[in-house]
Formats: sequence, C-alpha cells, structure tokens
Amino acid sequence: MRQRNKPWADDFLQENTDLVIPNPTEYKNKWHELFGNDNPIHVEIGTGKGQFIAGMAKQFPEVNFIGIELAKSVIVSAAQKVQESEQENIRLINENAENLIELFTPDEISTIYLNFSDPWPKNRHEKRRLTFHTFLSRYENVLKSDGELIFKTDNRGLFEYSLTSFSHYGMLLNEVSLDLHASNDPENIMTEYEEKFSAKGQPIYRCKAIFPNKN
Amino acid sequence: MRQRNKPWADDFLQENTDLVIPNPTEYKNKWHELFGNDNPIHVEIGTGKGQFIAGMAKQFPEVNFIGIELAKSVIVSAAQKVQESEQENIRLINENAENLIELFTPDEISTIYLNFSDPWPKNRHEKRRLTFHTFLSRYENVLKSDGELIFKTDNRGLFEYSLTSFSHYGMLLNEVSLDLHASNDPENIMTEYEEKFSAKGQPIYRCKAIFPNKN
Ligand SMILES: C[S@@+](CC[C@H](N)C(=O)[O-])C[C@H]1O[C@@H](n2cnc3c(N)ncnc32)[C@H](O)[C@@H]1O
Ligand SMILES: C[S@@+](CC[C@H](N)C(=O)[O-])C[C@H]1O[C@@H](n2cnc3c(N)ncnc32)[C@H](O)[C@@H]1O
Repeated sequence: MRQRNKPWADDFLQENTDLVIPNPTEYKNKWHELFGNDNPIHVEIGTGKGQFIAGMAKQFPEVNFIGIELAKSVIVSAAQKVQESEQENIRLINENAENLIELFTPDEISTIYLNFSDPWPKNRHEKRRLTFHTFLSRYENVLKSDGELIFKTDNRGLFEYSLTSFSHYGMLLNEVSLDLHASNDPENIMTEYEEKFSAKGQPIYRCKAIFPNKN
Repeated sequence: MRQRNKPWADDFLQENTDLVIPNPTEYKNKWHELFGNDNPIHVEIGTGKGQFIAGMAKQFPEVNFIGIELAKSVIVSAAQKVQESEQENIRLINENAENLIELFTPDEISTIYLNFSDPWPKNRHEKRRLTFHTFLSRYENVLKSDGELIFKTDNRGLFEYSLTSFSHYGMLLNEVSLDLHASNDPENIMTEYEEKFSAKGQPIYRCKAIFPNKN
C-alpha cells in the first residue's frame, strides 16, 4: 500500500503505545492478560488502514482483534481509524508477519485473516506471498487446532496459487466463494481494497481453510 | 442436456456398435485390446454432443478416448460428430457414470474429464453431482495412481462445491484456473457448453486434481 512518508508517524506511535504495542514479543502467551479477558483472539495480517478490523471489532465485541501491519506509514492510519471507532477490543502491531511465532505461542489464536495480500505475481517472488508454505507453517503453529484461516482477495492469480498451496500443505478447504458479493453475506465487513475492487465490478474471492493435521 | 426425442436413435446405435459399444462391461480390463494398442486411456464423463472428445482425439492421436454419456438422444449426436472427425481413437458408451467400476478395472484409466457437469444446485440433490464423494471414490478406483481428474465448468456454485469436495476427499489440487480463457491455454479444446457460456462473457473455471492416497 503506497502512502506518503509521514514524518509525524514516530511521534504518533510513541504517544499511542496502548493501541500500537511497541514491544509485542513481550506479550507472547500474554495477550489475554493485555486484553483483560479470555475472549478468543483473531489476527489480521496486513491490516492496511484498519477498516476491516475496526468493523469486525464492532460486529464481534466478544472477540479480541490484533492487526499486524508492516508499513509504519500505513499502521498510523489504522490506529486513527481504530481510535475513531472507540473499540476497546483491538490492538495493532507494526511487524512483519514473518515473525509471527515470536509474537504468539502455539494455540494462542482462533482465526487468522489475510485480506487482499500483496500478490507478488512473479514466480521468483513466490516466497513472499503470504500463502507460501513457510507462512502456512507459521499460521499452523500459532492457530488452535480447530483454528481457521480466512482469505479474501480480488487477485485471481494469487487466489489460484493459494488454493493449490493450501491443498499441498494438507489444509482442508471449508468454504470457497468465487464471488463473495454475489452471495451477499450480511456479516461480511469490507476492507479498503475490497471496496475499491468490488466497485469496479471485479469478483472478490474468499476461502476458509483449516489445518486438520495439527495435533 | 435437453434434446428432442429421436425415434431413429435405436436404429442408429444398432448400426454403429463399433463406435457406441453396446455391451461395455465386457470390455472391462480389455479396452486396450479393443483399441488395438497400449496407449493411455482418457475418459470423458457426460460427453454431450462430442465436440470436446472429437477435438481432443485429433489433438492427441496417441491417446485413446472413451466418452460416457447417459442420454441416448445426446450420444447419437456425439457419435455423428465422431464419425465426421474420422478419428479412430474414440469409443462411446451410453451409460450412467454411477456404473464406472463395472466398466473399468482399477488403474485402467489415465485421465478423467468432467466437462460442464449438471450443477444440481439444490442441497438435497448433492448426491447427484459428479463431484460428490461417492463419484470421487469411483474415479479413484479406476484411475492409475498418478491419474488426473480434470474438471471444467462455468457454474460457480458447482465449482465452489467441488473444490471443497476434492479437498475433503484428500485430493490434491494441482492447477486451478478461475478464468481459463483469460489465461489463453492454446491446448484447450472447447466443449459445446464452454463455447456458449464463454461467448456470454462468463468465466470458465478449471482445475486438475489427483488422488495422492491411491495405493
Ligand atoms: C494490498 S494491501 C491490503 C490492505 C488491507 N488488508 C485491505 O484489504 O484494504 C496489503 C497490506 O499488507 C501489508 N503487508 C505486506 N506484507 C506484510 C507482511 N509480511 N507482514 C505484515 N504486513 C504486510 C502491506 O504493508 C499492506 O498494507
Ligand atoms: C450440461 S451437459 C454438458 C455436455 C458437454 N460436456 C459440454 O460441456 O458441452 C451434461 C451432460 O452430462 C450427461 N450426464 C449427466 N449425468 C450423467 C451421468 N451420471 N453419467 C453420464 N452422463 C451424464 C448429461 O446427459 C449431459 O449430456
């Protein structure tokens, strides 16, 4: 997600350490303490500007949401959106999803969302795709045994790739939608990218998958 | 595929028993003898009017093709199309795919094609879908251990269902295309339905899958 450099981003993050957790590895196995309850934890990877996580947190007040976003200039927008939403059940982490297992203990997470992940269409960039098997093994590690990965994208190539990647990893596909908006799921919360691409008439692909071999 | 009743169909079939095999269960484990060579055998289920099988047989002369079609009034059209094509490497069977294991011995087949299978959209008709698990187990039985199932359809609901059905059966997805004609496969032979629906601008879905647990 391209965005102008934001010189004030560092100041903003320093002033909002209750929302954008500055030392997140310290909360590994302690996120429930931080939230102050035992509600299930859902993690969104590549949170962007935060529309999805803010909307989900409102729709599901008994779930704790954590958004992971690599780009500092982007996560500040997400933080502002979350502040406006006044939802207490959200935290943000400015990290690379590569470090997922330093952030969470095995079985700490109930659901992982991948929303409109960068497609990395070139073969030589396959490793960077968030559905490459090295990432799947991180998700398997931190998800509960019945935990779900929920993936939405407009990108046909990435979705095609991901279905085969899930299948070869031994994941089970539970729900596949090849035109999410045609099926009119009233619970669907749109992301920024989803609004943009569906307005252009592009189909939104979605699937849910589990790791049946986990424990 | 609806088609007018054809009173001459019985006569036609009796006159063309070299092409539309009248007693196909007798050839179980003997199809290679019937073709007179050891070329791999590919089976299309629900052959319709035969455009795909005739085109494939021409494109792959070193493969033997068998088309299975339930409707007598439809298989006669396929037979006429095959006769026009003058391809020697095709046989047709007027049978229900439910009886697949009476027709073929385990491992007799290299590839099975499902092309634009009837969608049976109602939940209570799930069992009739050619990608329901009872059918998958028949395909697994007759396919060689590295044999492929190749499925094309324009029907979104059936494709979504089939991906989850394959996954839950333990099949591996090898290639998924969510817009086959956009990817421009020069080897793709269109079926009658494929021509009709792609002309309307509908995406054609395709996937290839194998049974990794066979043997
Ligand atoms: C295409 S944007 C989509 C944003 C948002 N999910 C949406 O749907 O509108 C992808 C986002 O993922 C972030 N991202 C990419 N790779 C990441 C990684 N390895 N870890 C965390 N975030 C990542 C990018 O910085 C970007 O903000
Ligand atoms: C929708 S048509 C598609 C025809 C052709 N494959 C095409 O793509 O143009 C489906 C065909 O499958 C046949 N069919 C349906 N169920 C079948 C079964 N259980 N065994 C064999 N043929 C079947 C129907 O008679 C019909 O001709």
